[in-house]
Amino acid sequence: MQAQIITIGDELLIGQVVDTNSAFMAEQLNSYGIELNEIVSVHDNAEQIISALEDALGRVDVVLLTGGLGPTNDDITKLTLCRFFSTRLVENEEVKKHISELYAYRPEVFNRLTATQWQVPENALILPNSVGSAPLMVWTIEKDGRKQWVCSMPGVPYEMEIAMREQILPYLSRQMGAQAHIVHRTVIVYGIPESKLALQIADWEKALPKSMHLAYLPKDGIVRLRLSAYSGVTDEEVEAQIQKLLPLLGDSVLATQDLPLEVLVGAELKRRRQTISTAESCTGGKLAVLLNRHAGSSEFYKGSVVAYANEVKENVLGVREQTLSEYGAVSEQTVREMAQGVKQLLQTDYAIATSGIAGPSGGTEQKPVGTVWIAVATPQKTEAQCFHFGKLRDKNTDRATLAALVKLLKILQSE
Amino acid sequence: MQAQIITIGDELLIGQVVDTNSAFMAEQLNSYGIELNEIVSVHDNAEQIISALEDALGRVDVVLLTGGLGPTNDDITKLTLCRFFSTRLVENEEVKKHISELYAYRPEVFNRLTATQWQVPENALILPNSVGSAPLMVWTIEKDGRKQWVCSMPGVPYEMEIAMREQILPYLSRQMGAQAHIVHRTVIVYGIPESKLALQIADWEKALPKSMHLAYLPKDGIVRLRLSAYSGVTDEEVEAQIQKLLPLLGDSVLATQDLPLEVLVGAELKRRRQTISTAESCTGGKLAVLLNRHAGSSEFYKGSVVAYANEVKENVLGVREQTLSEYGAVSEQTVREMAQGVKQLLQTDYAIATSGIAGPSGGTEQKPVGTVWIAVATPQKTEAQCFHFGKLRDKNTDRATLAALVKLLKILQSE
Repeated sequence: MQAQIITIGDELLIGQVVDTNSAFMAEQLNSYGIELNEIVSVHDNAEQIISALEDALGRVDVVLLTGGLGPTNDDITKLTLCRFFSTRLVENEEVKKHISELYAYRPEVFNRLTATQWQVPENALILPNSVGSAPLMVWTIEKDGRKQWVCSMPGVPYEMEIAMREQILPYLSRQMGAQAHIVHRTVIVYGIPESKLALQIADWEKALPKSMHLAYLPKDGIVRLRLSAYSGVTDEEVEAQIQKLLPLLGDSVLATQDLPLEVLVGAELKRRRQTISTAESCTGGKLAVLLNRHAGSSEFYKGSVVAYANEVKENVLGVREQTLSEYGAVSEQTVREMAQGVKQLLQTDYAIATSGIAGPSGGTEQKPVGTVWIAVATPQKTEAQCFHFGKLRDKNTDRATLAALVKLLKILQSE
Repeated sequence: MQAQIITIGDELLIGQVVDTNSAFMAEQLNSYGIELNEIVSVHDNAEQIISALEDALGRVDVVLLTGGLGPTNDDITKLTLCRFFSTRLVENEEVKKHISELYAYRPEVFNRLTATQWQVPENALILPNSVGSAPLMVWTIEKDGRKQWVCSMPGVPYEMEIAMREQILPYLSRQMGAQAHIVHRTVIVYGIPESKLALQIADWEKALPKSMHLAYLPKDGIVRLRLSAYSGVTDEEVEAQIQKLLPLLGDSVLATQDLPLEVLVGAELKRRRQTISTAESCTGGKLAVLLNRHAGSSEFYKGSVVAYANEVKENVLGVREQTLSEYGAVSEQTVREMAQGVKQLLQTDYAIATSGIAGPSGGTEQKPVGTVWIAVATPQKTEAQCFHFGKLRDKNTDRATLAALVKLLKILQSE
């Protein structure tokens, strides 16, 4: 089964909003064994929506639309779909009841504009939207014994996510019956540039069966190697290829699961019942956000001190005045004292500290923009390392955050 | 002038990567007065790339491609474009020299795979990629007195961003000459649901000239109202409409510029030469990251304590044990003491504190998941407020972060 996504909204095409919906939907479709053919983003424009829809129906089995379902004048998806499917809007009592319950505590939302939300296309299947007022609409097209589906969802990311998980995918899954099995396996590699990596595993890659496909997904010094098998291949056959690959990569392998690094770190700390804290200057809290991002993080993460000003490094983390004046804030000595300081202050087993020149200004000849010191304090020792990233502020703090997590993970794995 | 974006990469269509490039490019095109017609994401597949390119050339003047320019086997954009433009690859000495300088300190990158990077299509204009090895390629198509351009850039976001800013857009701009002037003005509104807002300004919206278009961009309780004028309209005419709109919105207007809230907060604090710190439980450092995200933030932002564990609230921020045991960590009393504690500890003029139940677990009948207390301490007083968000962890911490910034901004604006 093949799918196409059409995201609708002027805001996407003037760059005010990043389309995060498509990646979520793509990943979900993939896990259901539905291959995504293409993603198209169009304006809130009836002709463009219909043209994209016609194109898609010429190619795929399922068309998923998001966006343009709000109650205001620039939202025209519902009316456009009525035109496309030659139908009219009718009041739907169930949707009305749902919306009245949803906004029971917000009577101000009830007015004539919201009322348009319980007007639904007469010939569409309406699925419940448990968290919003825009109805989920599904049309089934049957022609020459072949079935196609058009599903329309809100563009608000969390409404769309719940709609996909709770309604659209289970519905499509029931319609599809059994499907071809897709297998993806990912190996996360650190410290080898993509081009060198490709040489290192060239013979293995060349010998892969035709039914398997390897993709290199590099980002910030990490390469995710993704091996995919689209049909008729068993999990075991894919696993056998992975087992041949691993020895070629040696200790550059960070993980053999496609999980975020902070999840791998968290799992390792939870297993040992140990805790962590961070002391952050240039990363400014990004390590903290990652470490407490997932549910259950309070089992291993206790807290952080973002020590942006030097006086905070001194007064809160206990970095010595002499260290700061003699070596500067971006130095091995300072970052070591920051890590040890936060570890003691927050009473944790491990601690990470970062201090660097994120840019765009503040660089010197000795310490150019992009210079970052990272320290990891463990129950036994403190390790520090200097990195040189680039000139871009956001990029530098992202890369420092990632480098710090990699450093910690490597230490945890080696212990 | 109209444009189309084609982003290329299997990783986009299985959801491993969010396409942030398109939003960046869209925003840049917009600022140059180039209207973006559509965004299409396709696989690393020659037939699909060519079909998307043919489609686009049937509709627009400029086609921008990103992705598929890496040195590995799954990257086929360059060869596909050679096929499309009936040309062959030739060695380019300048590109070779640039790459050898770029990797002067990383000799391991030099090997036969990287060498493919200085093979470029013979009939393309090659523009320099100052930060990476993939060349920027531009083709000009002239037919019946009409010109079209096809530009291919790397998919790595920061390489693409620099390519757009430094090369592609200046190049296109020179080709285009004078263009129609596009004006966008944005008003940021807080506290009015989209549907109510639409009613409140319906008469004004209806009376807008045909040359202007209003869009509602709601996100997390904030609505950005964007008024656009596409041709022949002066800045003054758009401004006059904005001046009519503002009185209809009263004190719901947060800003009349399309800037992130943290930038508005930072500008206000810098103007007063005052400083801020944060004490974060449920937001876990997200306020810190926003406040120090932009260059120059050290002028007003000193640091944060992420107090995830209660002992950190007590030992570092000085929240009283009795407060925690009597009222709990998610309470007005605790969040007030957190704000006052961090303000004193970090010696700042203002402080924000957050404590809430982000979920998915940890909720009770009295304090369900989504309950968040936020306090803002000012030089004069401390204000606290309780919010009830939803059931989704990520969403809750994002909304709490935003609500805290809005609360601070409102207080700063009212002083």
